[in-house]
Formats: sequence, structure tokens, C-alpha cells
Amino acid sequence: MKFYLIACCLLAFLHLSAAKWSKPRRLNMMLNSRREIRDERCRQFRTITQKVDHFGFVNTDTYDQRYTLNTDYWESGRPIFFYAGNEGDIDLFCDNTGFMWDIAPLFNAMVVFGEHRYYGKSLPYGNASYLKPENARYLTSGQALADYAYLLDYIRSSIKGAENSPAIVFGGSYGGMLAAYFRMKYPHVVAGAHAASAPILQMTTPCEAFSRVVTQDFLRESSQCVDIIRSSWGAINRIAAAAGGLQRLTNLFKLCRPLQTADELKNWLLDMYGNIAMVDYPYPTSFLADLPAFPARAYCANVTASSLDRVNDDIDIVQRIVRGTNVFFNYTGHTECFDTGSQGTPSLGDLGWSYQSCTEFVMPMCSDGVNDMFEKQDWDFQAFSDSCYLQWQVRPRFEWPYIEYGGKNISDLRFYSNIAFTNGNLDPWSSGGVNVQVAPTLPAILVTGGAHHLDLRGANKADPPSVLQARQEIVALIETWIS
Amino acid sequence: MKFYLIACCLLAFLHLSAAKWSKPRRLNMMLNSRREIRDERCRQFRTITQKVDHFGFVNTDTYDQRYTLNTDYWESGRPIFFYAGNEGDIDLFCDNTGFMWDIAPLFNAMVVFGEHRYYGKSLPYGNASYLKPENARYLTSGQALADYAYLLDYIRSSIKGAENSPAIVFGGSYGGMLAAYFRMKYPHVVAGAHAASAPILQMTTPCEAFSRVVTQDFLRESSQCVDIIRSSWGAINRIAAAAGGLQRLTNLFKLCRPLQTADELKNWLLDMYGNIAMVDYPYPTSFLADLPAFPARAYCANVTASSLDRVNDDIDIVQRIVRGTNVFFNYTGHTECFDTGSQGTPSLGDLGWSYQSCTEFVMPMCSDGVNDMFEKQDWDFQAFSDSCYLQWQVRPRFEWPYIEYGGKNISDLRFYSNIAFTNGNLDPWSSGGVNVQVAPTLPAILVTGGAHHLDLRGANKADPPSVLQARQEIVALIETWIS
Repeated sequence: MKFYLIACCLLAFLHLSAAKWSKPRRLNMMLNSRREIRDERCRQFRTITQKVDHFGFVNTDTYDQRYTLNTDYWESGRPIFFYAGNEGDIDLFCDNTGFMWDIAPLFNAMVVFGEHRYYGKSLPYGNASYLKPENARYLTSGQALADYAYLLDYIRSSIKGAENSPAIVFGGSYGGMLAAYFRMKYPHVVAGAHAASAPILQMTTPCEAFSRVVTQDFLRESSQCVDIIRSSWGAINRIAAAAGGLQRLTNLFKLCRPLQTADELKNWLLDMYGNIAMVDYPYPTSFLADLPAFPARAYCANVTASSLDRVNDDIDIVQRIVRGTNVFFNYTGHTECFDTGSQGTPSLGDLGWSYQSCTEFVMPMCSDGVNDMFEKQDWDFQAFSDSCYLQWQVRPRFEWPYIEYGGKNISDLRFYSNIAFTNGNLDPWSSGGVNVQVAPTLPAILVTGGAHHLDLRGANKADPPSVLQARQEIVALIETWIS
Repeated sequence: MKFYLIACCLLAFLHLSAAKWSKPRRLNMMLNSRREIRDERCRQFRTITQKVDHFGFVNTDTYDQRYTLNTDYWESGRPIFFYAGNEGDIDLFCDNTGFMWDIAPLFNAMVVFGEHRYYGKSLPYGNASYLKPENARYLTSGQALADYAYLLDYIRSSIKGAENSPAIVFGGSYGGMLAAYFRMKYPHVVAGAHAASAPILQMTTPCEAFSRVVTQDFLRESSQCVDIIRSSWGAINRIAAAAGGLQRLTNLFKLCRPLQTADELKNWLLDMYGNIAMVDYPYPTSFLADLPAFPARAYCANVTASSLDRVNDDIDIVQRIVRGTNVFFNYTGHTECFDTGSQGTPSLGDLGWSYQSCTEFVMPMCSDGVNDMFEKQDWDFQAFSDSCYLQWQVRPRFEWPYIEYGGKNISDLRFYSNIAFTNGNLDPWSSGGVNVQVAPTLPAILVTGGAHHLDLRGANKADPPSVLQARQEIVALIETWIS
């Protein structure tokens, strides 16, 4: 969990790589997807010319925003289903949001996916979009929402029969935050929102919450597994501190490049635990990696396997972790060595989310090593801010999201309407989600046994009853919202 | 009505003055007020440091926003009454919004007036705020609303007992638009809004609507008066076209400087008619000028006085107009000559509103000379846009307000809540106001016999029953909103 490692290990990271230590936890794993589903409808791209700066009149630059639009099921006057794209290529979100495609025929809905500015091919300044602060400055959620409002206005103006079509916005993770925000700020544009696994309260949630949910996910599989993970940090530290220790760890973990610090390895593992918790789906997926159903269960099965019985030995503990790691990074057995610099394919999306977490979306993370299975790490806003300044020449304003969107207190939301917040109890991001209903038209739907926005995925035989129920509730809500 | 004169008379105006022709109709007359009431509570200024750019992270400049705060009636936990300052010095709005002061004791309310950025003393770049596009670019309604949200957050954080105080926002004219927008965009910050004479639909209202209401105001006093005014434009044109005609008009109107064009005179008169309609209050006021009660009535009485009976003669018609003009510009008889360049004291506020109407708030105006008492003038967006570019190096985006705030169709507003829209039927800006109730908590309150935001003014013995009723309704609504 890079967020809290940043705080304590700033100097160590500075030695390692200027780019790495300020890269925060990703909100959405779809970016690195291996595209398990490839839907040709998600590649029928269109573009719309957008203002780079909606909120001022001096910069008159424009850029081409990419989107997909499908009218296979649509009938005149019927709804527009709009996906508020998040930090990545829009075709990936389109491929992986089967729910919208599944229910579009029920509503005779048009299906539109809007790509988020500064991601995918929607780059305001092309390859130079991140090269200098003056170019990157228009990467904000507010500008993205204005793009979406213009896009929907354009669709309604240009497609005959769509003038009065109500729009429903969908999104998962950061896209879910955008879906909620879109309805909050533009209720004249969208009639309702399905905000899946949207941690809109993460900025004001206690920093240890995320770590605890990750730990709970593993604990429900095996308390022994959690004990081993909790022990592993000390084991790694001790091995690393011994002569030739880093090389030994490099060999044990079959890393492609020699470790420079123990933190490099621990970060890689921390990210993995968070990712396993996020994608702890009830059926095999190929999101971040080829994974079995319930990957946390598979991980713990490997770690606790009885053939390994020397639990008190540092090397034994690390070997157990290595076996677990294989579940996530080498389930198919084809990987020869591992790269600690990445949890998947490097992508421009990482850069964008780094910028966004250094400006609007500071999500404090920490752990205490007691109520969670990680090393104790404090949250240090100043160190985080300094790291942002070094990389981006900007500093975050942690208060801005709750000024702009509310959420300092959850009751702030009570004046908003027609937003369904869905959260899975396995998803660590649920810790920053809206899990209680604060107003009559703001249902909080719990998906028991669900990981990160499981409900947005296409129907699957292994779906738990809770997600079938959640999807039915969403369908009923949409009926209400568009009537 | 400079808006539509711009369209047809661009070249004439270019000869006259580069500054004048792009100056649109003012929304609020308070700026030039002669401060009939001077309330010391309105001079207890405070300042708060605000970001110049809330919507980005690259420009980290700050400025001191001015506001007033009064706790004479306030008790812990009780409401905050907040005035969303519009285009001028905040003390003037404070002096002239007696309604808030009148009802503050009923609610034990704190009374706060926030100054709008780029007006009064709240200048992001001091005297250079308008000198170049890069300095002026942060003058938008969205930035102003963010200032207000930060200010209220600061008040709640820093004043003991205010943490959970609900806030009610008030505003008149452009301030009324801001009050409505504030509730629409920040319902987590303000529980309700009293939006008085707020023409939030003016940007999408037919351009002739304003002229027709002005005409109706005069028509209710005298149809002969309206006929004379309608005839006067031709009379002025014919006199101006004759040899020595402009000098003759200069003398007839007792102008301080010789007229350069007939348009200069006609613009001055057009502005006057709009202003008389706006301040057609039922008791003497000293807003734009020292005026009698019902100034349109006094104007028409002078214009139609029976001692002047040569109505068909151009000189006679103009002399009648001159006599009417004296009601507005020389009611006290102390003015020796008149300045066509101004309807009152020149002020930085004019500059700011010129910029705002050249960016966000394009309010198309036109007249047909048949259903109104003015010369036929078309609306020409391109010419207006060109004039804006010449003065400010920016062009308006006429669609942006309805994208950002809704209002392309009035039904866009139905998802918003807790906004009371008040409009007087004498007020020409009511033509762009919300005059029908589109949702249960969006009452549209008509003030029969009321001019521009009469309801926000302090109680007066001459107040018509309609405004007493409106104020009672607002008090009852506030009770509901804060409960």
C-alpha cells in the first residue's frame, strides 16, 4: 500500500526510483486487464471536440475525447446508459462492464462509454499531456464531468429521438465516484446513478480502514494464513539485513532484477494483497492476472499447505509467501521471473492516477500491525505532499473534495438523490464507500461475498445470490428514475 | 439596451468608444447606489485567504476575500444567513438587503455577506485584476461559488457552536442567480436558497422578452406615454440627421458634452427605461438616483402633461422625453448637465460584469418596435462575440450556463430542491426568471406590483400586500429548510 509507505520510507524510496514512491494505490484494476472479454461493440469509437478548460475562457484549446456509442437495442425516446470512464482506456471499461450490456435490451437503451480525459486516447496535449504542469493542470474530476455533460448534450442534440431520453450514469471504483458526482452536480443531465464500489468517503475515512478489510478477506480464509503474512515482514527484514540477504530474497522470489532494498519487495507484496482482495471474485478471472476463483483462498491454501511445517523459520515463512505469490503472479506457471516494478502492464493510466491522487484525491492509508496483517506504518500528509511536489510541482488540497462534493460528514449527502451505492464486503475500497442509506433515494446496497464492483460485471453462473439481488434492485431503481 | 444595440450599431459604436459598445446591461443597480441606508454592521469587514483557482492545482496564488459577519442575534447551533455577493461592493448589498436583517432575530441567525471575487476589495490581482486575460480568467460564477463554500466551511470550523449550523443563502439579481446555483451545486453546504429576481433562464429566453416587460410597465401607467416614447426614436433620428442636429439634441437634453452620434443619446435613454422599470418601487428610493415612488408613473406624467400639446412635432416629442428624463436624472433639480456615458457612478463593477457577460452570461436582447416601445433591433451573437474578443480577448460560450447549471428547459430544474424563486411582475428581469413551480420544493413566488427584488429590501410602510405575503412565505420555508 504505497500510500502509507510513502510516509515512512520516503528516503528509501528516493534512492530507489523517483517515479515509484509517489505513485499511490490504484483505484481500479481494469487498466491492466488482460481483456478477458473483447467486445467489438467496444471498439466502435467516435470522438467529440471538447474544450480543454471548461471553467475558464482564456485557454481556448480543444481536444478530441473518445467514446463509444451503440444503438443496437435503442428505441427513440428510450434511455441512454452512460458509463463515466475512469483512469484508463475506455474499451477496457466497456469490455468489463457486462451489466450495462446485459440490461440494455430490457430498457431499449443506447449504450455510451465516455473516455476520461488524460487517459486512453483522450489526451488534451497528446504525448505531452503530462510533460509539464501547464499541460497536466486540466486533469480534474470537475473537468471530466463537464466533458461528460457536453457529450450527453451533444448526443441529445444530434441523434433524432434522443432529445428527451433520460440518461443513467454507471461507473465502478473511481468511475463510480464520477457516477455519483455526476448525478450530484448535474442532476439536470442524468436522472440517476449506479455508483459501484465508489469510495467517495475515502478522503475522510480513518487511514487504517483499507488495511483492515484486506486483512479480513484473508482472515475469513485462514487465521494461520494471516499470522504467516504478519510474520513475513520481520522475516524479510531479517533476511535482508544479513550479508547477501537481498540477493537471497531476489533468488527466493525469482525476481528478474536484483533487489535494491527490502522496501521494494515489501511494496510489491503489499500491492498484491490489496489487489487480491479487490479481485477476490467467485469465479476465475484474468483481470490483473490469470486467477482462480477466490484467489485469497488459493493464496492461503498455498501459504498454509501442510507439506511446509517449519513455520518458525524465516526462510520457511518467506518460502510460504513465495508459494502464495505464485497464485497471483504465476497461476498458469508460465512466468519465469517477476518484476517488482509493476503489478501488470505499465500504462499511461498510472501516471494520470498519480497526478489525481496528488491533487484532488488524497486517500490516507496506514496500518498498525495489530488489527491488520501489515507492518506498522503511519500516515504523513506532509511527506506525501512533498513527494507530489517533487514529481508534479503541485500539492494536494485534501479538503477540496469534501468542499466540492461533500462527504466531510456522510449526512452531507442527504440532499442528493437517485444514486445507488453498491459495495462488496470483500472489497477493501468499501471502507470508503457509502454503506448506509442517508436519504430515501440514496440506497446503499451491500453485496455480501462481493469484491470490487462485482455487480458491474456480466452475469456469471458463480455469481452469489447477493449480486443477483443487487442487480435486480438496480433494474427496479432505473425503472423509477426514468419514469 | 446595449445588448441589442451592439448587434446593429457595431461600426457606429466603434467610432464612439471602444469601451462602451461591449458593455452589456447591468443586472443589478445596487452598484451605483447612493447608499440610502448606511448600516455600520455592514462595515465590520473581515477577510479570508482564498485560492485564486479552486479548479486547478498549478496556480497557487491566493487573495483576500472580504466579508462581513454579525452575531448580534446569533445563538449556538442556530442558522447562518449568507448573502451570495454579486457584482459590487459587499457593503452596498449588505446595506440594501434589509430583509435578512429584519428576520435574523426571528431565527437567532448569524448574518454573513460574502463579497464576490473581482469586485469591491476582493481583487485577486489587485488593481491589475482586469489588465490582462491571464489575470481576469478566474472571474467565473463557479469560482465565486467555491469561494463561498470555503468561506462557510471556515466559519463552521472556526466559530464555536457553528459546526452544525444550517446555512440559508440569499441573493438578488445576479446574486439571486448565485443563491440558486449555490444550492444547486452545493446542497451539502446550504440548506436552502432565497433567489430574488434571479434571471437564471435569461440565457435561453427569447431576446425580446425583456423589452416587452419594460414596455408593459410604462403601458400600465399610460398608453399615450408609450406612444410618445415609441415615436421619439424617429424624432431623434430626424433631428440628428439635419444640419446642426446633434448640437440641437445636446442642448435640448442639457448634455455636458456634445453628442457624437444619435446612438449615444438613444443608448442612454434605453438604459434609463430599463432602469426605471427595475426600480419602479412603491416608495421613494435613492438607488440609481433620487427617485419618487413609482418612477414610471412620474415619468409618464411628465411626458404626457397637458400643457404640452404639440405631440406630432419632433421637437415637441423630444421636449416631452426631456421632461421625463428629468424625473430619473434630475428629480431633485440639482443637476446642471447630464453625462450620457453613465447612469451613475462609474465603478469597477461595470468592468467585471462586462467580462462576465462576455464569457458565461450572454443574455440576448432585442426589440421589434411593435410589441415594445423601442426601435427594431435584432440580436447578433457573432457581433457580440467579436466585441467581446476585441475588449477582453475572450469569446462567450453561450451554452455553458445551461450545461453547468441547467435551464435549457425549465424542467431541468426539477431535480433540485429548497430554492424559493421570487419575481416581481414589474421587473423586466422577471422575463428570465423561474415563474412556475417545477418541483415540490422549488416554489415560484410572484410579487404583484414588485420591481427588482423588492422582497429583499427592508420592510416599508408602502410595501404592497404581495411582498408582505412573499416574505412570510420565505420565513415559513426557512423554518422548514433548517428543521
